Amino acid sequence: TLVLRNGRTGKMTENGMASRGKVLTIDTMNPTVKKVEYAVRGPIVQRAVQLEKELREGAKKPFAEVIKANIGDAHAMGQQPITFFRQVLALCSYPELLNDSTFPEDAKSRARRILQSCGGSSIGAYSASQGIDCVRQDVARYIEQRDGGIPCDPDNIYLTTGASDGIVTMLKLLVCGEGKSRTGVMISIPQYPLYSAALAELGAVQINYYLNEEKCWSLDISELQRALDEARRHCNPRALCIINPGNPTGQVQSRQCIEDVIRFAAKERLLLMADEVYQDNVYADGCKFHSFKKVLFEMGPEFSNNVELASFHSTSKCYMGECGFRGGYMEIINMDAEVKAQLTKLVSVRLCPPVPGQALMDLVVNCPQPGEPSYNNFMKERTATLGVLAEKAKLTEQILNTVPGISCNPVQGAMYSFPRITIPEKAIREAKEKGQAPDMLYCMKLLEETGICLVPGSGFGQKEGTYHFRMTILPATDKLKILLSKVKEFHQKFTQQYS
Amino acid sequence: TLVLRNGRTGKMTENGMASRGKVLTIDTMNPTVKKVEYAVRGPIVQRAVQLEKELREGAKKPFAEVIKANIGDAHAMGQQPITFFRQVLALCSYPELLNDSTFPEDAKSRARRILQSCGGSSIGAYSASQGIDCVRQDVARYIEQRDGGIPCDPDNIYLTTGASDGIVTMLKLLVCGEGKSRTGVMISIPQYPLYSAALAELGAVQINYYLNEEKCWSLDISELQRALDEARRHCNPRALCIINPGNPTGQVQSRQCIEDVIRFAAKERLLLMADEVYQDNVYADGCKFHSFKKVLFEMGPEFSNNVELASFHSTSKCYMGECGFRGGYMEIINMDAEVKAQLTKLVSVRLCPPVPGQALMDLVVNCPQPGEPSYNNFMKERTATLGVLAEKAKLTEQILNTVPGISCNPVQGAMYSFPRITIPEKAIREAKEKGQAPDMLYCMKLLEETGICLVPGSGFGQKEGTYHFRMTILPATDKLKILLSKVKEFHQKFTQQYS
Repeated sequence: TLVLRNGRTGKMTENGMASRGKVLTIDTMNPTVKKVEYAVRGPIVQRAVQLEKELREGAKKPFAEVIKANIGDAHAMGQQPITFFRQVLALCSYPELLNDSTFPEDAKSRARRILQSCGGSSIGAYSASQGIDCVRQDVARYIEQRDGGIPCDPDNIYLTTGASDGIVTMLKLLVCGEGKSRTGVMISIPQYPLYSAALAELGAVQINYYLNEEKCWSLDISELQRALDEARRHCNPRALCIINPGNPTGQVQSRQCIEDVIRFAAKERLLLMADEVYQDNVYADGCKFHSFKKVLFEMGPEFSNNVELASFHSTSKCYMGECGFRGGYMEIINMDAEVKAQLTKLVSVRLCPPVPGQALMDLVVNCPQPGEPSYNNFMKERTATLGVLAEKAKLTEQILNTVPGISCNPVQGAMYSFPRITIPEKAIREAKEKGQAPDMLYCMKLLEETGICLVPGSGFGQKEGTYHFRMTILPATDKLKILLSKVKEFHQKFTQQYS
Repeated sequence: TLVLRNGRTGKMTENGMASRGKVLTIDTMNPTVKKVEYAVRGPIVQRAVQLEKELREGAKKPFAEVIKANIGDAHAMGQQPITFFRQVLALCSYPELLNDSTFPEDAKSRARRILQSCGGSSIGAYSASQGIDCVRQDVARYIEQRDGGIPCDPDNIYLTTGASDGIVTMLKLLVCGEGKSRTGVMISIPQYPLYSAALAELGAVQINYYLNEEKCWSLDISELQRALDEARRHCNPRALCIINPGNPTGQVQSRQCIEDVIRFAAKERLLLMADEVYQDNVYADGCKFHSFKKVLFEMGPEFSNNVELASFHSTSKCYMGECGFRGGYMEIINMDAEVKAQLTKLVSVRLCPPVPGQALMDLVVNCPQPGEPSYNNFMKERTATLGVLAEKAKLTEQILNTVPGISCNPVQGAMYSFPRITIPEKAIREAKEKGQAPDMLYCMKLLEETGICLVPGSGFGQKEGTYHFRMTILPATDKLKILLSKVKEFHQKFTQQYS
């Protein structure tokens, strides 16, 4: 071993040259990046990809295919794109097709409108960093309609690279201070791990508040208060994140709950971040999506003039499921003008969100209207997709609840169930010996034995001593039934094996 | 004024309610974000957008249109997209078109190949976070061909959301330490302001090395050494960024220079970041693009087994100019395996780069081949676009050099000229009184009087006491001639006015 400059050591290689230590090693890399975890694409998924490869190469497994129910990736699970959206995207990509008589007129007029607002009439031009003007106008009109006429200023709309991008950008603006003054951000547990990952990377303090599993994953204000009061002792809580409808928990918040949350945020001076990407995914009777914006404005000027709110939407979920396009927007309410200027500057460094994703976002908020040639087919496709999702939400809950040792709240909305599983003591001990979370052991075994890929609850956070998995409801109905019966069978076997 | 909880102050509003201070203000936001600057979309461009709006609203100006030569946005300046690329993108967006006989067979086979490697055969599915497998394979083959057969492992390829995304991600991995141990990164001056913006946001130390304007913006190793030695006194220099062909300076590095840079990086233990997004944009006689990868491997195993290199490419420049799609890739060489795993984890948090951009990247690296139906037309379009750019590069240099007080190096490559301008003392004093950079004053006046939008050299960095502007060569030849003659006229008037 040699001691090289900077005191690092190297080895003599066979040909006698000094092989220097790397500049960038696990010990000398950004420590905040190391703290980032992201379960949705973690070790289980890596193993699933490997298994798929082994199957392709002819390996013998106790299953013929890997079924991935780990991620809300609708098209990958066979959901069909909306024809109208794809027609317009094709027209925008290759405007020669505007002369093709097989495309409907409303698709052509949408494409023309988008192209006219692109530099050089090309979706290959950069857009304004905040997003294409006409798309932001359409988003604002959509929000106004959705919220019963409450005004929306296009200048408060920022188009984003999926909702994740908007969420990370807002968090980035918020983070400051050191030690006890360090910015803290409240997130629900269970949470979508983008939040914990972003907070780890930014070095912000994650403040956990627990959703109430016994009351269908609802949010209790007293729990918010507990979490906040505790956090104030060691950091500076500045923001409260809500996912509604919930991921991974599938609950839909009542109007009353949203009002209480807003009141809490106002009282405690917290900026609200409302992740509303599942706003069209509401299935349960008596549940309805209420936007934070609408409730805020209905609470009167004391709130609507004061509470700072950022809300997020995306092309990836709802009936569209267009994840690959990375389209999204955020609306900001009551943001300080100087901070807004800083936000605009910050997003300009990345130039602009992908323009095809912006175009798609435009179609979502400006979809075919009654009387337009594509309206009927659009509505048929949309209704069918949402209908099937509602059916699968019900099916998932019902079948899982027939399994002793599994209990599953109703999937009121979104695309996931997050059932609680009983894991025998013996399995918990085995997992701990391996340094593994018990539900990771469970999910890994499930994958190896059945080819079913779920994500352990520990990747989303859960109450100490409870275990869960997250499962999407996206596989086709037939496959979902097979998947659920395999889970049932596995759970019984697993329980027996470890009893 | 009231004192509210947390000691912040508020005002009584007219209706007697306490208007609370904002949670997020310029004083309580992330201080590193405040330090970010991005001249390419700074105040000049904001004013240009405003002027366009005023013109549309019928305001009288001394010009009929605003000509933007501030950003490398080819399509916005009228450059036409490559037909083949757009055909395949339309096919991928709306696969019904695969039955349309007007599309060429090679476009269809490319589309089928891309769709087959997408989940559910849809570009609306998420891809692997590192990028679609077959696209990464095609990128690797392209690099091998480009570099005369030097092997490229698809596993070292990461698809990105434009090159900017890859560059920021690599910088993010590198940043650690505090005070004198804080990571320092060497960047050329003049630079592309993404680098300074990303370093400011990450809180890394920016180490400036100056390109030699007298020698056609070439890179002197002695200047690298000077900058490094100075920096070592106050930070920990870990990476060296090179832009070749240069932005904003348009120089193309010689093979010898690249070899010297690699030797320097090896000796000084610096990770190399090679921004090679203009690799097809080489115009000057005797100039040729040499990739850092190729030179590194030709230098033998002492270097090719040791020097850590990340190189970046994009769909936005070259003959494609498809900025809006945000496509790109990076290749990493000699990266520590554990760090690579961290990199893969980090990119997974954002799920995946936009899939249409990945598809486009695939077409760039897997373009029509001799014998395929689209080959001739593709080559015709490609050659024409690059030919016009070469012509405009020459034209720009020639005309600018006829102006007394402007001197312009040859635009050997890329898409920009960065001429030096003489600004009279009186104008410098006036700018300083206004707290403005003298070349900002110059560019702002140019914009107000002629409608031409350029970016002041101060936004890219320049030697103290020298002044420049960056101008793209992208406007259509006719418009470029008008623009250059207006700049000439303006410069003469400006010089006279301030003499």
